[in-house]
Amino acid sequence: MSAKYAMISTWKMSLAGMRKAKRLMESGGSARDALAAAITDVEDDPAFHSVGYSGLPNARGEVELDAGFMNGRDLSFGAVSGVKNIQNPILVARELSGLARSCFLTAAGAESYAAAHGFAMRNMLTEDALAAYRREMAKQTAVREADPAADAHDTVCVVAQDTDAELYAGVSTSGLFMKHPGRVGDSPVIGSGFYCDSTAGGAAATGFGEDVMRGCLSVRIVGRIAAGRSPQEACEEVLEAHLARLADAGYTPGNISVIALGRDGRFGAATNRAEFPFVVFDEAREATLMVCRSDGGRIRVEEADAAWLESYKGD
Amino acid sequence: MSAKYAMISTWKMSLAGMRKAKRLMESGGSARDALAAAITDVEDDPAFHSVGYSGLPNARGEVELDAGFMNGRDLSFGAVSGVKNIQNPILVARELSGLARSCFLTAAGAESYAAAHGFAMRNMLTEDALAAYRREMAKQTAVREADPAADAHDTVCVVAQDTDAELYAGVSTSGLFMKHPGRVGDSPVIGSGFYCDSTAGGAAATGFGEDVMRGCLSVRIVGRIAAGRSPQEACEEVLEAHLARLADAGYTPGNISVIALGRDGRFGAATNRAEFPFVVFDEAREATLMVCRSDGGRIRVEEADAAWLESYKGD
Repeated sequence: MSAKYAMISTWKMSLAGMRKAKRLMESGGSARDALAAAITDVEDDPAFHSVGYSGLPNARGEVELDAGFMNGRDLSFGAVSGVKNIQNPILVARELSGLARSCFLTAAGAESYAAAHGFAMRNMLTEDALAAYRREMAKQTAVREADPAADAHDTVCVVAQDTDAELYAGVSTSGLFMKHPGRVGDSPVIGSGFYCDSTAGGAAATGFGEDVMRGCLSVRIVGRIAAGRSPQEACEEVLEAHLARLADAGYTPGNISVIALGRDGRFGAATNRAEFPFVVFDEAREATLMVCRSDGGRIRVEEADAAWLESYKGD
Repeated sequence: MSAKYAMISTWKMSLAGMRKAKRLMESGGSARDALAAAITDVEDDPAFHSVGYSGLPNARGEVELDAGFMNGRDLSFGAVSGVKNIQNPILVARELSGLARSCFLTAAGAESYAAAHGFAMRNMLTEDALAAYRREMAKQTAVREADPAADAHDTVCVVAQDTDAELYAGVSTSGLFMKHPGRVGDSPVIGSGFYCDSTAGGAAATGFGEDVMRGCLSVRIVGRIAAGRSPQEACEEVLEAHLARLADAGYTPGNISVIALGRDGRFGAATNRAEFPFVVFDEAREATLMVCRSDGGRIRVEEADAAWLESYKGD
């Protein structure tokens, strides 16, 4: 039995946007629009320094943004990488998903597309983010990139399912703080940062993008759901297999967290962090903050309680 | 039983480079270097208008290049997208695969990396390619992009296996003729244009990049090899499933061709074109031109004979 609609998103920072998305779905809105509402809410909020406006800059002090969008009905997708001054990268990615070709645009080519098609342009570097950049530059004897295990690199990811059991996935990020100019993370990379297929499910990833990409985690999770696993089983199996494969190669990955949603509205999550908060709602449930915990490789998923909320310092 | 070494590459245009690669492997060279030799041979040859020097330009008359490289031992990878004036994009992608982060660089950020690290820079637009652009502009009342089913969009892809049963994959292209500036094809996208895992196999794709990306074909082929299929079975199964999925959605894809190599040196190929030429060699066989044919969905792979060579007009 399918849910009438369901959505899942990464990080506590998506909670306000997911509440808006729930209202939209209740009033008969489309999952496609509700997904965009949830993501633009995070993009527009200057309190969050890893997505959109007020994102932390690259090593040259420029905010470069990545986003991706996919429609699981016909596997159409859109993406932008390394774009500056676009207010809502997710909306450009979503529009590109409607094109027959040139669905993935980068840098100046993507910016000229956005400007020519009426998307709002904005200086995305805030005083706060600039101050963080200056502090970092003053500390460093040589420019270094952010520590993938420690610094802000949280992508807002949403997977949505609507009444026709259609699936959509969308992601948006400003990427690693102090990244090399032009660095592309997993977010605009189909199959890694996001993937969905309405015949099975959808998935998305957040964390250290290079380590997500080397495993193509999102399309592999969707593949497991297609093979009959629950979204929770699929997330755990794929992440566990990838971490084991990297350990065999003597490689220690950065943080990786994944979410998934089945076409029936069931959800899943997995992480190699101690804690990874995410948000879910469906027609029977308000937007609810959940916590996924990794404890010696064992994954537990629970509703966030007041004590956890009190203790959590992240976005 | 493993081959001592084996390589597979896309299109007839790779034959000369594969002969050089075979000499390198015979004299004890590494698969990593042989792969680079095969690809740079195509990048440097002005006779080929879909890769490297003399590649056909985008809608603004600029040559923008994409490349990717992966090392199947530890799943490290590198890629560049939308880069101008880099003589050998594959060599930059290969170098980036050795970095802990910022392995995928785009546009100006990738160009500044290449220039700062001593890679040769070159104006990649030849008189021939400029003339083709001017003819196309004169014909068009409005700028249109190339027809994905008809125009040059052939990527050179190589998958290589060496004596330790390690696998490498590399790809390079100038992308679609008359593409939107900043358009990123499947070539620099890990899992779509290329993927390899030394515990299983490697794969790469050529054709209409958007249609390759919406199926993440390379990582799915490697997944089938990991599940026990031969590289030939894996190529056929994944391409057939993807084409069926798109047909169910009412979508008619452009040309797609794929190649694969197992860690044991066995190879495979599949296509939805009437003919797709590719090249293979191993320790017992010189570089040999093969033809993969699709006939009503049934795939046949044979050595190219003199009559075929006489009739073939493509690269």
